[in-house]
Amino acid sequence: MSDRAQRLAARLPELELDALVVSSLVNVRYLTGYTGSNGLVLLGSQLRVFMTDFRYSEQAAAEVGDAFERRIVAQELIDAVPELLAGQRLRLGFEDAHLSVRAHARLRELLGDGVELVAAGDPVEQLRAIKEPEEVQRIARAAALADEALEEVLGQGLVGRTERAVATALSRAMIDRGARRDSFDPIVAAGPHGALPHAEPREVEIGAGQLVVIDWGAELDGYCSDCTRTVATGDPGEDARAIYELVAEAQRVGLGALAPGASGRDVDAAARAVIDGAGHAEHYGHGLGHGVGLEIHEGPRLSQRSDSVLCAGNVVTVEPGVYLPGRFGVRIEDLAVVTESGARVLSSLRKDLWIVG
Amino acid sequence: MSDRAQRLAARLPELELDALVVSSLVNVRYLTGYTGSNGLVLLGSQLRVFMTDFRYSEQAAAEVGDAFERRIVAQELIDAVPELLAGQRLRLGFEDAHLSVRAHARLRELLGDGVELVAAGDPVEQLRAIKEPEEVQRIARAAALADEALEEVLGQGLVGRTERAVATALSRAMIDRGARRDSFDPIVAAGPHGALPHAEPREVEIGAGQLVVIDWGAELDGYCSDCTRTVATGDPGEDARAIYELVAEAQRVGLGALAPGASGRDVDAAARAVIDGAGHAEHYGHGLGHGVGLEIHEGPRLSQRSDSVLCAGNVVTVEPGVYLPGRFGVRIEDLAVVTESGARVLSSLRKDLWIVG
Repeated sequence: MSDRAQRLAARLPELELDALVVSSLVNVRYLTGYTGSNGLVLLGSQLRVFMTDFRYSEQAAAEVGDAFERRIVAQELIDAVPELLAGQRLRLGFEDAHLSVRAHARLRELLGDGVELVAAGDPVEQLRAIKEPEEVQRIARAAALADEALEEVLGQGLVGRTERAVATALSRAMIDRGARRDSFDPIVAAGPHGALPHAEPREVEIGAGQLVVIDWGAELDGYCSDCTRTVATGDPGEDARAIYELVAEAQRVGLGALAPGASGRDVDAAARAVIDGAGHAEHYGHGLGHGVGLEIHEGPRLSQRSDSVLCAGNVVTVEPGVYLPGRFGVRIEDLAVVTESGARVLSSLRKDLWIVG
Repeated sequence: MSDRAQRLAARLPELELDALVVSSLVNVRYLTGYTGSNGLVLLGSQLRVFMTDFRYSEQAAAEVGDAFERRIVAQELIDAVPELLAGQRLRLGFEDAHLSVRAHARLRELLGDGVELVAAGDPVEQLRAIKEPEEVQRIARAAALADEALEEVLGQGLVGRTERAVATALSRAMIDRGARRDSFDPIVAAGPHGALPHAEPREVEIGAGQLVVIDWGAELDGYCSDCTRTVATGDPGEDARAIYELVAEAQRVGLGALAPGASGRDVDAAARAVIDGAGHAEHYGHGLGHGVGLEIHEGPRLSQRSDSVLCAGNVVTVEPGVYLPGRFGVRIEDLAVVTESGARVLSSLRKDLWIVG
């Protein structure tokens, strides 16, 4: 953790900042290890201060490493920032995508004239996008747990169960295996409902001979997993099989395009070309993938509008889909870590069409 | 839902606003019924626009009532606001506790000179603090589900199980009963660990003759519950029994002080006086309670610094505690709805000291 603060502090000169206030809780967690619900970091070239209120003093003592001075302050943590900077002339960065207009106004009001408040962009998110080996291991463990949960749930069959019941069984199977929670609400979408990329599970029984899109993930030790499989309840018919193979091919191509130096646009384009080439461009309306870590959606992005360039340590989803309104949908998704030489998939589930009773 | 938009629109004149952009997702949900993860509302005296991106078009069609015009726009929803206001001179409010500095700057850049952007405070939160009867029913259902889950888990005994195992069993029992998820991470804290108001469950076995603080809740149909019981694994000793009775008395007094017109400070003070009178002021370091609804913490607040005045329809926790460092803690919490004549408790669990094997 202290390395992370060190790396962030090392970036302050290029950001033309003397110090940075980190208010995003997940970024505070990344830097300090603190998992409570009220925390703030103030960081400068030598400065390492973590603030919380009295409710979390013991938790902070247990979680926050020695690299940080811990301060117990009033619940409105931002109010404690000015006195830490008292009398100094400096440029203080803030996370402009996270700090609210109200908190910013409060900070501005309390700070002396000597402090210039500067929108600092997303410097912590940029660090987070490149995972340390231990972070990759945690994500892999969450993915393995989620894989096992799906195998258990599919082993009980799908036909005659409602989408909602299957989603609940998945959530429960993950908790049973030690997950803290779902990393997002699971999607279980059968037949035509699978043509909605973000379908909500319904109280509707799954029939035979349908494709069922299942998109689920676990949160374990703070890290998320994300996976999708499209399975069939008996033979779904020739068209469905053909679309399944098309999406599987697009996914293989997308995974194969992952490499350090590849752009998020290029990887997206490689997989998209497979689907476009089969005449289904209009049936694939989302990006190819996104980073996953402490949050289920983070950098880098794989999409037509991405400005990311991949590097070793990125962990991304690769999840092309084809959605035929009123008929069915297919999406196949894996998590992969970008390595020096390409990428390594973190899921272990089969990708040929899985027939479930 | 459309009544809610109507009530909000009726407040615009007193806020000196022509229109309001609602960017907090939970507030968007409250106004429209939309449960997805990208949505925005623009509301004026006649204007009712809900915006999302293509991924949620069918979900929005299913969830968002006819009172709103639905617009499918690019993923950066805020970018679509200016054209809806094209050419008008007006004062546009925004939720300054939610809108980020970055989003605000973007909006300011895109809007014409004729639009004045005004920090609008929390007008939707103010509506949300007063629950409709159906909302109270939903919260009561979540509370009843959580009650059943605790009874099941305590029925399996506590001694020899780890705090973490009990917490997991609670989460699982709630999911089994149809909860979407925990409304917050459950606290299960035995013996001296119970002296931390926000203890994390540990991989430590619960012993005999200890007090165990259990604070848990369910999210059901979007609404949260929140409850705490402190139970004993065999006789915890005379001091623990005395503190238990003290906290139980403070809680009775706090619940008895709930009434329309009472201030959040007065209700807090009534319960606090019981604990202070017994010489334990320093062992009770938090507020008496908070509102609960779509979120686990919302208005009104019951605390020494609250500026809330209660009214019928508020749903609040009443949760005094006494924490003796190194020894044990006791907290007893119920949800209650403020009625015309007082308050009604929404939990049904016993409050005499519950002895569990």
